[in-house]
Amino acid sequence: MEVYLDNNATTKVDPKVLEEMLPFFCDIYGNPNSLHRFGAGTHPKMLEALDYLYEGIGAADEDDIVITANATEANNWVIKGAWIEYILNGNKNHIITSEVEHPAITATCRFLETQGVNVTYLEVNEEGVLDAQSVKDAIREDTALVSIMWANNETGKLFPVKEIGLICKTTGVPFHSDATQAIGKVKVDVQANDVDMISFSAHKFHGPKGVGGLYIKKGVSLPPYMHGGEQMGGRRAGTVDVASMVGMGKAMQMATNTMAIAYEKNHVGMLRDKLEKAILKIPDTVVIGGRENRTPNTTLISIRGVEGESMLWDLNQNGIGASTGSACASEDLEANPVMNAFGSDSELAHTGIRFSLSRFNTEEQITNAVTRLRGISSSYAYTPKKYA
Amino acid sequence: MEVYLDNNATTKVDPKVLEEMLPFFCDIYGNPNSLHRFGAGTHPKMLEALDYLYEGIGAADEDDIVITANATEANNWVIKGAWIEYILNGNKNHIITSEVEHPAITATCRFLETQGVNVTYLEVNEEGVLDAQSVKDAIREDTALVSIMWANNETGKLFPVKEIGLICKTTGVPFHSDATQAIGKVKVDVQANDVDMISFSAHKFHGPKGVGGLYIKKGVSLPPYMHGGEQMGGRRAGTVDVASMVGMGKAMQMATNTMAIAYEKNHVGMLRDKLEKAILKIPDTVVIGGRENRTPNTTLISIRGVEGESMLWDLNQNGIGASTGSACASEDLEANPVMNAFGSDSELAHTGIRFSLSRFNTEEQITNAVTRLRGISSSYAYTPKKYA
Repeated sequence: MEVYLDNNATTKVDPKVLEEMLPFFCDIYGNPNSLHRFGAGTHPKMLEALDYLYEGIGAADEDDIVITANATEANNWVIKGAWIEYILNGNKNHIITSEVEHPAITATCRFLETQGVNVTYLEVNEEGVLDAQSVKDAIREDTALVSIMWANNETGKLFPVKEIGLICKTTGVPFHSDATQAIGKVKVDVQANDVDMISFSAHKFHGPKGVGGLYIKKGVSLPPYMHGGEQMGGRRAGTVDVASMVGMGKAMQMATNTMAIAYEKNHVGMLRDKLEKAILKIPDTVVIGGRENRTPNTTLISIRGVEGESMLWDLNQNGIGASTGSACASEDLEANPVMNAFGSDSELAHTGIRFSLSRFNTEEQITNAVTRLRGISSSYAYTPKKYA
Repeated sequence: MEVYLDNNATTKVDPKVLEEMLPFFCDIYGNPNSLHRFGAGTHPKMLEALDYLYEGIGAADEDDIVITANATEANNWVIKGAWIEYILNGNKNHIITSEVEHPAITATCRFLETQGVNVTYLEVNEEGVLDAQSVKDAIREDTALVSIMWANNETGKLFPVKEIGLICKTTGVPFHSDATQAIGKVKVDVQANDVDMISFSAHKFHGPKGVGGLYIKKGVSLPPYMHGGEQMGGRRAGTVDVASMVGMGKAMQMATNTMAIAYEKNHVGMLRDKLEKAILKIPDTVVIGGRENRTPNTTLISIRGVEGESMLWDLNQNGIGASTGSACASEDLEANPVMNAFGSDSELAHTGIRFSLSRFNTEEQITNAVTRLRGISSSYAYTPKKYA
C-alpha cells in the first residue's frame, strides 16, 4: 500500500476536477478572446470558475482575481511589481517579509537586494511564527510592501494575518500574503482579514499544476508582470489556459466550501494527529513549532539522531512519500528556511521530516504507515546516524 | 458543419497529446523534484518530452530549453531579462525589434520605453517583412538585444532569420526570435539559423494551453524571470507542470517530424491555397503581404468594402471560425500591427480577414467553407459596408 503524505509539495488532481477540464482540450478548444463561437463556447465555464474563486477566498465583486501560471508567478509579480511601481518609479525603497517565506518570495527579495532595495526579513519566534507587532515596528516611511505568508509550508503554522492586515491598513502599506498553503486547509477570507493581495496555486488543493492566481483588491496599484495582449483586463497577457482555469475553479469550490473545511479540520486533522502521536512515542521526537495553531494536515517532526534524508529514503523504500525539513536536501526545492530559523548549526536542522496529508488519505493508510514507521524507527534506535 | 479556421489563435489539442497527459493528473501526480517515488515516477516521460523539444527545434544538448507558461512569458522574460542584465546592470540601452511583432514583444518594449530604454521598431516593406540589412543598420554600440519574429501571426510571412542570425553573431548582439507561429508550420532549426533564443507556445501546435518554452543557447546570459525554487536548473522557478510538459513534448514531436512538416507544406498548404483562390475570385480582394514565402496554413485577405468584423460575424453565423486582421476588433487580442504597418488610415486597415488552417482541417470542410463564403460575399456585393 502506497501512502502519499507529501501534499504540501503537490496534490493529486481530484478526478471530478479532471472531468471538468476534459472538454476544453479537444472539443471546446477556442481562444476565449476570439469573436467566434469556438471562443465564446469557453465562457460559461470560465465565469463559473471565477465565481468559485471569488467565493473561495471571500473576494468582493469589484476586486480582481488574475489567473497566473502558479503562486511562484503571483509572488514574483507582487514583489517585482512593487519594485517597479513604488521603488524604481516612486520614492519607496523598502520591503518587509519574514525569514520563513517560500523561496518564491525570498529569492525574489534577494534579487531585489542586488538592485539596491532594502529588505527586512523578520525573525520568527520559537514557534516558527512572528508577532504582528514586529511588522509594525519594521514599517518605515519608505516601505513599499509587506509580504507575510498565511500558513507556513513546512510547519503548517498560521501567521497573524488579521493583525498584520490591520496594521498595514492603518499605515497605508500594501499587504500581500502568500496563501498557497492555507487554501483548502483553513478558511481564507481576504476581506475579513484586510489583505490587499494573496497568491495561490491550484495544485496545492487538488487542482492541476501550472495554474494559480493573484487576488488584487480594488484600488491596489500593481503594474502587469506579463505584458502583451489584453487578457485578464490587461493585467496578465497570454492566452488563457481554459482547461486549467476551469479545473482550478472546481478545485477551489471543492476545497473551500464549508463542509470541505470542516472535513479538513476534523477528519484530516484526526488522521494527522494519529500519525503524529504514534511518531511522538519514539524517544527524542519533537513537533517543530509546536502543535497549536496549524493547518490540520501538516506536521514537521524531528527525531533526534535521525537524519531527515535517510529517514525519507527509508520511508520511500516502504512506499511512504514524505519530505525532509532539512535545507540540505539537494533535490528538495522547498528547502526549509524554518529549520534554519531554528538554527542551522544545531542538530535539529538536519532532522526534520514533514508529513502532509490530504482528503485522499484514509485511516487504513495512516494505520499502515504507523506500523511501517515503527519498524523503520526501531532500526534507527539500534544504529543512529551520526553527522557533523 | 463547423469549420475552425483560426489555428493561429489557438489549436485543438491532438487526442494523442491528451492521451499522453492523462496519467499525470490523478495517477503519477508527484512533484518531480521530490525525493520519493511519487516524484521520480514523472521523470521518464519528462525526459522523453525534453528529447522531443530539443529535436523539434534543432537544439544542441548543451543548450537549455526552459518550460514556461506560454510564449508570452518567454517573450517577457527575454525582453525584461535583457533590460535587467544589459541595461539596468550593464552599459547598454537599446533594443531592436520590428513594428509587426506580437503584442507580447511590443507591449513589453513599450513598457521598457517608460523606463528610459531606447527601442527601434523596424519598419516592414510592402510584403510585411523587413530586410536583414535594416537590422544591421540599426545595431548600435549600446544595443542589448535584437528580437525579430520567425513568422508573422497575421500574414504567415517568414522573416529572414538566418541573415539576421549571421548579422547578430558577427556583431555580438544576442538574437531572439519569437517562433510561436513557425513551429510545426515550417522547419525551425535554431543551430542552422544562429538564433540565440526562441519562444514558443504549445497551444499553437496542437498541444495544451498554459505551457510554452524558451530556448536559450549555451553561453547566453539571461537572469531568471521567475525567482524561487531551483526548478529548470535554477532558470525558472515554480513546480513543473508535468502533464503540460509531457503534452507539449508529444505535440512538438507530432508537429515537427519530417512527415508532419511535409504534410503541412503539401496538404495543409493545398487546402489553404484552395480556400484562398476561391476568395480571390471575389472582386477587389488581395492577399496582404503577397503569397510567397509564408507559412503554409495562413492567409490574410482583404476584400475591399467589406469590414473585417462584419465578415467575421457572418462567417461565425455560418459556422466558420476565423479572425479579423483589423486593429479595431476590440476583443481581438492579437490585434494586427501588420494592418497598421500598411497604413491604418487606409481602407485596407479595416478589411483583413485571417484564415489559418491546421492538419485537422479536411478537404470537405474547405469545400463547404468556400460555398458558404460565396454566399456571404454575394450578399456583400449588393450591400457593401461603408465606413470612415
